Amino acid sequence: MRVFYSEDHRLHFPQAELSGGQFVTPFERPSRLEYILNRLRKRQFLDVVAPEAVDMAPITALLDPGYLTFLETAWDEWKAAGMGGEIIAANVPARGMHMDRIPENIDGKVGYYCHASETAITQGTWKAALSSVASAQAAQRHVAAGANAAFALCRPPGHHATADQYGGFCFINNAAVTAQMFRDSGAERVAVLDIDFHHGNGTQDIFYERADVLFASLHGAPQQTYPYFIGYADEKGRGEGEGYNFNYPMLSGTGYSQWSAALDDAIAKISAWGAEVLVVSLGVDAYKDDPISFFQLESDDFTDAGRRIGRMKLPTVFCMEGGYAVEMVGVNTVNVLEGFADA
Amino acid sequence: MRVFYSEDHRLHFPQAELSGGQFVTPFERPSRLEYILNRLRKRQFLDVVAPEAVDMAPITALLDPGYLTFLETAWDEWKAAGMGGEIIAANVPARGMHMDRIPENIDGKVGYYCHASETAITQGTWKAALSSVASAQAAQRHVAAGANAAFALCRPPGHHATADQYGGFCFINNAAVTAQMFRDSGAERVAVLDIDFHHGNGTQDIFYERADVLFASLHGAPQQTYPYFIGYADEKGRGEGEGYNFNYPMLSGTGYSQWSAALDDAIAKISAWGAEVLVVSLGVDAYKDDPISFFQLESDDFTDAGRRIGRMKLPTVFCMEGGYAVEMVGVNTVNVLEGFADA
Ligand SMILES: [Zn+2]
Ligand SMILES: [Zn+2]
Repeated sequence: MRVFYSEDHRLHFPQAELSGGQFVTPFERPSRLEYILNRLRKRQFLDVVAPEAVDMAPITALLDPGYLTFLETAWDEWKAAGMGGEIIAANVPARGMHMDRIPENIDGKVGYYCHASETAITQGTWKAALSSVASAQAAQRHVAAGANAAFALCRPPGHHATADQYGGFCFINNAAVTAQMFRDSGAERVAVLDIDFHHGNGTQDIFYERADVLFASLHGAPQQTYPYFIGYADEKGRGEGEGYNFNYPMLSGTGYSQWSAALDDAIAKISAWGAEVLVVSLGVDAYKDDPISFFQLESDDFTDAGRRIGRMKLPTVFCMEGGYAVEMVGVNTVNVLEGFADA
Repeated sequence: MRVFYSEDHRLHFPQAELSGGQFVTPFERPSRLEYILNRLRKRQFLDVVAPEAVDMAPITALLDPGYLTFLETAWDEWKAAGMGGEIIAANVPARGMHMDRIPENIDGKVGYYCHASETAITQGTWKAALSSVASAQAAQRHVAAGANAAFALCRPPGHHATADQYGGFCFINNAAVTAQMFRDSGAERVAVLDIDFHHGNGTQDIFYERADVLFASLHGAPQQTYPYFIGYADEKGRGEGEGYNFNYPMLSGTGYSQWSAALDDAIAKISAWGAEVLVVSLGVDAYKDDPISFFQLESDDFTDAGRRIGRMKLPTVFCMEGGYAVEMVGVNTVNVLEGFADA
């Protein structure tokens, strides 16, 4: 399986992340990918290539152009306004406020385009985010050209980013762009399966009113974990999209038995629908020792999960999402890929 | 003019405030009140008394009981969850998410009940907020009993707090509680005039659908300053409240000429309506040297503003709100009171 990876992810490394009322060393840090690369090498995934330059057209077509301009220019505006630190949102459109009026002031714009203040924008964030989605695009092209599967080793991750909001360490939704590019290259039915510990709220939001992209997400129950206000089982899509969104929220302490039953259900939905291609939002923070999550998956469970996904026999792009138990992120990620390849 | 003041405001003193992507020493700090107390003494406002115990009944009747319980218990829940710092919101219900589902998790609850992450909750915040509103209640009783005016030297301030959201350094809306208590004690028409630099979004929100409490606010235009997403001139009330909400947003650089014209217009609206009593949200951050504001009022302008307000000859409770140019907060605040008394 070919792996697409850009060194430019290193351009995004915030000094701090807001957690528990303090600034902590970011959980979402560059070393995560080093552990994955080391493990890939060790397990003979040697076909690791840098992506070509990003193709902006499918991104601007899918996402909000004002949002993309904001991401590109926010750092310069923030610094021009004399702000001392990295970009962290403080003021947001809340209940009872206007949800559709964009301030001129950069501090206000940050709040408008952000949904979670743990996520900082730095000088290199935009370039890193483009390099991340470039890997997803390259993986999509590789599979669209006939490969069975590809792994986009994306960083920053993407599944929490909506068409016009960043947060949850995500800026551009790599999986959503990948899914849309499959549609554009001829697939009628594209499925996105999100096995990251956290709900893929961004991906859900982008495709919520569409019947051509099915979304299924296994994740921590929103009443107990981020993103808290979305990811309930009763979110089933809207309008034409009704019936094409499947959420599997699970409570703290959930182990592989319950998790894999949800996975099987999601796989059955995808297969019954007749998906032609699959995009997997591959987070491994369902791991038992993940520092910000509460599922109980063992490393071997990730191999088994990969195998179940592989049995669908669909052309598949894996997009890297979360996973913060850094030493084990490599093992667990590659286990999914190996299970998939062995199916 | 009697001044009501509780020492318990000192119980709320966050270590840090999120500003420009950094934690800074809070602008909203205890010393603000020391400057005001010193100036009051110097200008012979010697009738400074501590309020009686807070009366919870009017507070729970006006605000959301779940919100009040949250404020009371948040610190213990936060610490029980192992959080290292003070309470700072990181995750909020944003566009596209549920606005009406309250998480179980304390980190999620904080996001649900907060609209701005610069505002920290500390161990002593709840007790301080109660002492602040107790001063407002005592001032209301004093005026309802026949006094011409009273000054509630409230801290923390209140006008940004809605019935179920804190933010902007505010937790319990002192001015709104005061206005409601005037209604409860027999006044048919109560006006709230907010001259703080920032929009009194909380007060507006609490009375937005009511015709018995008129709200008028002079403030920095929302596209340029906090709270960014509310405070536009086209917000005029809803339902029965339509026509009883007046916003005067003004752009960066506004001086007293424009500001006082807006004040006169608000005063004319209040007088024409036939308000029986007046609550003034008294912030002095419209001052030219305020560190987080952009109006250009001189100290003498505050005297003149107080005089204009005093000419309404209404029974009046002043509730202290913002003002962060600490050395001048005392002068400017007392100038308003002196102008009022001289009218
Ligand atoms: Zn995750
Ligand atoms: Zn203010």
